[in-house]
Amino acid sequence: MVKKGTVGIARDGGRRTGASHSPGGAQGSVGEVATRFHQFAHPPGTLVLESGQSLGPVEVAYETYGGLNAEKSNAIMILHALTGDAHAAGIHEADGRLGWWDAMIGPGKAFDTERYCIICSNVLGGCKGTTGPVSVNPRTGRVYAMDFPLITIGDMVAVQRRLLDHLGIDRLLAVAGGSMGGMQALEWLRAFPERLCGAVVIATAAKHSPQQIAFNEVGRQAIMADPDWREGHYDGQPPSKGLALARMIGHITYMSEASMSEKFGRRIQAPHQSHKFSNGFEVEEYLHHKGRRFVERFDANSYLYITHAMDSYDFSRGEDMHRALAGLTQKVMLIAFRSDWLYPVAQSREIARACKAAGVDATYCEIDSDYGHDAFLLEVEQESHLIRHFLQGLEAARGTC
Amino acid sequence: MVKKGTVGIARDGGRRTGASHSPGGAQGSVGEVATRFHQFAHPPGTLVLESGQSLGPVEVAYETYGGLNAEKSNAIMILHALTGDAHAAGIHEADGRLGWWDAMIGPGKAFDTERYCIICSNVLGGCKGTTGPVSVNPRTGRVYAMDFPLITIGDMVAVQRRLLDHLGIDRLLAVAGGSMGGMQALEWLRAFPERLCGAVVIATAAKHSPQQIAFNEVGRQAIMADPDWREGHYDGQPPSKGLALARMIGHITYMSEASMSEKFGRRIQAPHQSHKFSNGFEVEEYLHHKGRRFVERFDANSYLYITHAMDSYDFSRGEDMHRALAGLTQKVMLIAFRSDWLYPVAQSREIARACKAAGVDATYCEIDSDYGHDAFLLEVEQESHLIRHFLQGLEAARGTC
Repeated sequence: MVKKGTVGIARDGGRRTGASHSPGGAQGSVGEVATRFHQFAHPPGTLVLESGQSLGPVEVAYETYGGLNAEKSNAIMILHALTGDAHAAGIHEADGRLGWWDAMIGPGKAFDTERYCIICSNVLGGCKGTTGPVSVNPRTGRVYAMDFPLITIGDMVAVQRRLLDHLGIDRLLAVAGGSMGGMQALEWLRAFPERLCGAVVIATAAKHSPQQIAFNEVGRQAIMADPDWREGHYDGQPPSKGLALARMIGHITYMSEASMSEKFGRRIQAPHQSHKFSNGFEVEEYLHHKGRRFVERFDANSYLYITHAMDSYDFSRGEDMHRALAGLTQKVMLIAFRSDWLYPVAQSREIARACKAAGVDATYCEIDSDYGHDAFLLEVEQESHLIRHFLQGLEAARGTC
Repeated sequence: MVKKGTVGIARDGGRRTGASHSPGGAQGSVGEVATRFHQFAHPPGTLVLESGQSLGPVEVAYETYGGLNAEKSNAIMILHALTGDAHAAGIHEADGRLGWWDAMIGPGKAFDTERYCIICSNVLGGCKGTTGPVSVNPRTGRVYAMDFPLITIGDMVAVQRRLLDHLGIDRLLAVAGGSMGGMQALEWLRAFPERLCGAVVIATAAKHSPQQIAFNEVGRQAIMADPDWREGHYDGQPPSKGLALARMIGHITYMSEASMSEKFGRRIQAPHQSHKFSNGFEVEEYLHHKGRRFVERFDANSYLYITHAMDSYDFSRGEDMHRALAGLTQKVMLIAFRSDWLYPVAQSREIARACKAAGVDATYCEIDSDYGHDAFLLEVEQESHLIRHFLQGLEAARGTC
C-alpha cells in the first residue's frame, strides 16, 4: 500500500512536475496534475510499425496519479478513446481542465489512487503531445501531416509498452479502457499478455462492423471534403467545418435515442434559428456547439489517422477469436451497455463467448443504462462497483498472475 | 372493376401521354409510363402555405397507373419519401427507369392496377417536376433557390389535395406511404379526412425525435458547409460533395447493423483504396457509390427544404395525439419494422396507442425484418399481404366510409 503523499514515478526526466496528490478522503480528486513527456532514448528512438515502416523519434505524453509501491505491482494503465488524451484525472495545471475520467480515478474512486499507480498516455497518432501528424517530421523540418505513416491499434500499444519499460514497470496490475480504449486493452492481451494481470474492456469491439466503419468513413469524408483540408496540408487554417461535422456525426452515435429524447425532446433553444433550415431545436444547437468546441481542441488529420486505425483493427487478425485468446492466463472483465448502439452489447458478448471457448477467465457485465455509448464515461457508480471488485480480485491473485 | 386497357384519367391536359397498361397476368408491370404535369389554373394559381406565405404558380408532376372506375371510388394516392418522385411504378418512357415502388404497384400486386387507379405525385419542394427551389421564380425570372419559401408536410398534402380536385376525384379509397410518405398519410388523415376511406402509414413517426432531427441536421450541415453551396445560389455547380455526404449519412440510417453486416461484412472491395484512410472495405465503396449517384439525380436545396419540412412536422401540433385523432372514421393500417432504428417501432406503436385511445379503427403490424428502414421498400411479400387485405376491407366498407 502506498502512503499518502508519495510521489509516484519520479525518475522521469519529463519537462514538467509530477502529479501532486490530494490530502485523501473518501472520494477525492488527485488534485492539480501536469502532463509529462518522454522521448524514447533508444537510438535512434524509432519505432517499427506494424506496417513495417519506421517512425522516429517518438515522444509520448503521459500523466500518472498515485504512487508506485515498492514491488511495482500496483500500476494500472488507462487507455483513452478516439478523442481522449493523457489527462485522465485531476485538474490540469495548465488550463484547469478536469480529466476525462476524473469520476473514475482518484482517492477512493474505482481506480483508487490510494491503492494504485495510474498511468495514462496519449495515443500514437494523437494530437495531445504524443507523436502524431501534428508533430514535426525531422526529415523535412515541417509538420508531418500526410507524411505521417498509417498507424494501428497495435502501434499505439507498442508505444505504451515502451513507456512502461521507461517507467521500469515489468507488469501492470491491469489495463483498462472504453471504446477505442477497449480495443487497446484487447490488444495488450494479445501482444503483451506477460506484462499484465488483467484487462478491463469496456463498450468496445474486437473489430469494427460495417456500420461502425461507415460512420467513421462519413466523418473522414466530412473532413476531406472541406477545401480547407488541402489534402492534409492545412497549417494555419484547419478544416474546421469538416471536423465539426465529423464530431456532430460522432455525437449522435454516442448517445441513445432515449437519452437524446430525455435531454432535448423537441424543445426549441433559440428564437433566432442558426440557419434557415434549422427549426432551432435544442438538439441542433447542442450538436453545433459540440462541433465548434471540438475544432478548438482536436486535429483533423489525427481524426483521420485514428479512425483508420480503429477501422482496420482486428483483434484476431482474421483468425477465430477464441484461437487468438487461447492460453491467456490473464483475467478479463468485459462491460457493455444495453443502449449502446454504436458498440452494441452483441460485440462484447462475442468477446465473452470467445473467452469462454478459449478457457480464459472472463467476466461479462451488461449494464442497463440509457446513455448509449457515452455510458462508459457516465455510468460511474455501476462501473466503479464492478471495476473495484475486479481490481481487488487481481490484487488477491497477484502472486500467481 | 376496371377493364384492361382502360386509359385511366385522360382528361388531363398534361404534356405527355398517359400510362399504358401491361397485358395483365398474375403479377405484372404497368409497362411504360410517362410523368404528367399540371399547373393549377385557379387564378393566380397560387397556394397559401401553412406559414401564411403565398406561392405560385404551382405545378405538380404526377403519374397514374390503372383506370378510374365509373364511380371514381377506386383511387389510391401513393406518397413518396424524402428523395422519391412521381415515378412510383412501371418503366419510365424517358429513361427506362423502374418506379421506386414498382414491386408493390402493378397488375396483381399489392396496389393492384387491375382494381385500383394509383396516383403518385412529386412533393412540393421536390426537384422532380413539382414546384420547388429548382423552379423558376416568376417574380425574378431566376431559379428560386433560397427565395423558395419554407414549406411543410401540410403544404405537400395541400398540393396533393388540389391535384385530386383537378382529377375530379372526391374521395380516395386510401392514401399510402412510408417514411416521409407515412407522415403525409397521417397529414391527409388530419387535414382532409373526408377525402379518404383509409390510410396505410408505414415506418414513420407522428413527429421527429431529436435523433431523427440530428441526423437530418448533420446532412444539412454537410450541404451548407460545401463552399459550392454558395448560400444556395449554386446554379451550374451544385455542392456535390456536401450532398453526397448527406446521402451517405442517410444510407447508414436506412440500413440495419444486421443488414450491413450481411451485405458487406468486412470484405475488401478495392485493391486500390479510394483514399489513404479508407481500408477499401466494401461498405465504404458502397457509400461512396450511393453518394456519387445521388448527386446526379437530386437537388441540394430540395434536400434542405424537405428535411426541414420533416423535422418541423408534428401531426398533433403540440396537442395530445389521441385528441387530434378523435372522431376519425377512416381506417388506419400502421406498419413498422423491428430492425428500423431510424423510425423505431416505438414511434408507430405510439400512433397505434393514440388511435386506440381515440377510438380510431387502426391495425398495427410489426414486421420482423432485418432490412432496417429500407424494409418499407424491400419487404414486398409481407407488406403486400397486409396491404392487399386492408384495401379489400376498405372496398367492402366503401359504402359507409
